[in-house]
Amino acid sequence: MIEKEIVKSIENAERIAILPHVFADGDALGSSIALALALRKIGKQVKVYIEEEIPHTFEFLPGREYVEVYRGQIEDYDLVLILDTGDLERLGKRVEIFNSIKHTVNIDHHTTNTEFASVNLVNTKAAAVGELIYQLIKSMEISLDQDISTCLYVAVATDTGGFRYSNTTALTHQITADLINNGVDVSKISQIVFETVPYKKVKLMGLAIDTIEISENGKLAFISVTEEMMKKTDASEEDCDGLVNIARNIEGVEVAVLVRQRSKDEFKINFRSQNYVDVSAIARKYSGGGHMKAAGCTLKGNMEEIKQMLKKDIKEVL
Amino acid sequence: MIEKEIVKSIENAERIAILPHVFADGDALGSSIALALALRKIGKQVKVYIEEEIPHTFEFLPGREYVEVYRGQIEDYDLVLILDTGDLERLGKRVEIFNSIKHTVNIDHHTTNTEFASVNLVNTKAAAVGELIYQLIKSMEISLDQDISTCLYVAVATDTGGFRYSNTTALTHQITADLINNGVDVSKISQIVFETVPYKKVKLMGLAIDTIEISENGKLAFISVTEEMMKKTDASEEDCDGLVNIARNIEGVEVAVLVRQRSKDEFKINFRSQNYVDVSAIARKYSGGGHMKAAGCTLKGNMEEIKQMLKKDIKEVL
Repeated sequence: MIEKEIVKSIENAERIAILPHVFADGDALGSSIALALALRKIGKQVKVYIEEEIPHTFEFLPGREYVEVYRGQIEDYDLVLILDTGDLERLGKRVEIFNSIKHTVNIDHHTTNTEFASVNLVNTKAAAVGELIYQLIKSMEISLDQDISTCLYVAVATDTGGFRYSNTTALTHQITADLINNGVDVSKISQIVFETVPYKKVKLMGLAIDTIEISENGKLAFISVTEEMMKKTDASEEDCDGLVNIARNIEGVEVAVLVRQRSKDEFKINFRSQNYVDVSAIARKYSGGGHMKAAGCTLKGNMEEIKQMLKKDIKEVL
Repeated sequence: MIEKEIVKSIENAERIAILPHVFADGDALGSSIALALALRKIGKQVKVYIEEEIPHTFEFLPGREYVEVYRGQIEDYDLVLILDTGDLERLGKRVEIFNSIKHTVNIDHHTTNTEFASVNLVNTKAAAVGELIYQLIKSMEISLDQDISTCLYVAVATDTGGFRYSNTTALTHQITADLINNGVDVSKISQIVFETVPYKKVKLMGLAIDTIEISENGKLAFISVTEEMMKKTDASEEDCDGLVNIARNIEGVEVAVLVRQRSKDEFKINFRSQNYVDVSAIARKYSGGGHMKAAGCTLKGNMEEIKQMLKKDIKEVL
């Protein structure tokens, strides 16, 4: 069994590096830090290397003293564990660390994983890598304390959208029950991770809501962001995350489109569908891509003309 | 044990009425319908009587054919089960049904429950009455099918704010794991219950965001709704639900205040705090009330003067 092989690799190693993917999210960071904390409990020397600074939202995570931003430093490690990373490109510059270590282990849940390491544990049924790390820590009989449980809770809760996405399983909730038993402060963490929004993002939301156009008997919703709105609210790219969902979540809407101006005549388009429309087909028509219910592309031209063109495409499939 | 007494009452009854509280929410409705479905499985004649029509959000619930709006009809029942209801006032007109039946059972989790029935099962540690009904159905050895599980999932998920409030326990997640094993469609239900918003509410949100005023180094946020905004968006009272949270969730905000105009010179005030401010003390000063982190009152006067007055009060405790 691969799990046993991984446990053996860990037992045989003294110095261990853990690498989550670039732009580490709650699952990548939470899983990596949880594993680092657990391995330190059995006397290993562990460091988590990340590509960018820890996002503000996850600064509260316990154990972040074992996390370092990679700036070219290569130490002599016996083993590297790569978490939540579908392929080597997603390691960014830290592929240098990967290349410098003989024993490599890849633990992931992405269907697109390329099995790039010497040992690969890829379980696409896991809602989060946090679930796999939970099981790994359990199988090594390391006790889950409050800090480890908090990191794993963040991993599982974020990758399931707060237990709302279709990847959420009975096992997700069973694991979470155990984590809460170990002292996770559910309301505090939920508030930090899911509720807190920067003021500039709220202001951008307000302006974007004002642009919503509903048509096709309420089934199609456009929402727009211009360069001017970004400037006025001092918002940045990440503040646009989730804006398309405001339109998609309107009662009766089947397709929502965010048209976001990136320069004078370039627009980033995000499509979302609710039930039956395959928006990836529309995105592909314009050299974009994605999934059935979430896709995107980039278009050049004039905002009004782009909207009219997309409206025509969407009308056909509504 | 009270649970055993309740099971015995149910076994001895043939015709059973179930009453959730007025303005039935996800827990009240989900628990009531789940119990009705379960009791029908063991051959009981069961009807759920509600005070108002089922809210649009919960129309998808299976088993709503056993739900009836009370319009004075009194049938001859052997037993009435009152769910999620702290006192008899919360039964509205349906107290007539309660008064017409000798055997009364009260199943609730509110700390304020007045134990008004002949048998009272009040467990204030339960996150939702759904948890208590889950355990009751289990103890009667009635198998949980997909429909019952869906109703109980809605009960538990809504009363914990989607597993985010501090009432969420390990048991909440253990129960949910079992419900998902019985076929609950997590993403579909989460979308309906937590994400879908009427367009008029989205528009009101946009206008309300535009009124946000931040002061006291980012710790105090006011958000306002005028009669004009309500008219412009065709919004109703329930569309104001949650608006105060937009202000409270802004990064750095400790106290948020929603000032909502109800008539020319009357304003409904909602207070929320994040960590340490007891807003109920401020509400009480103006004959209002509530909890430490959520309180409200009604004030007469001019909107600007009211804001200045409240700002002075809040400044003192920030």
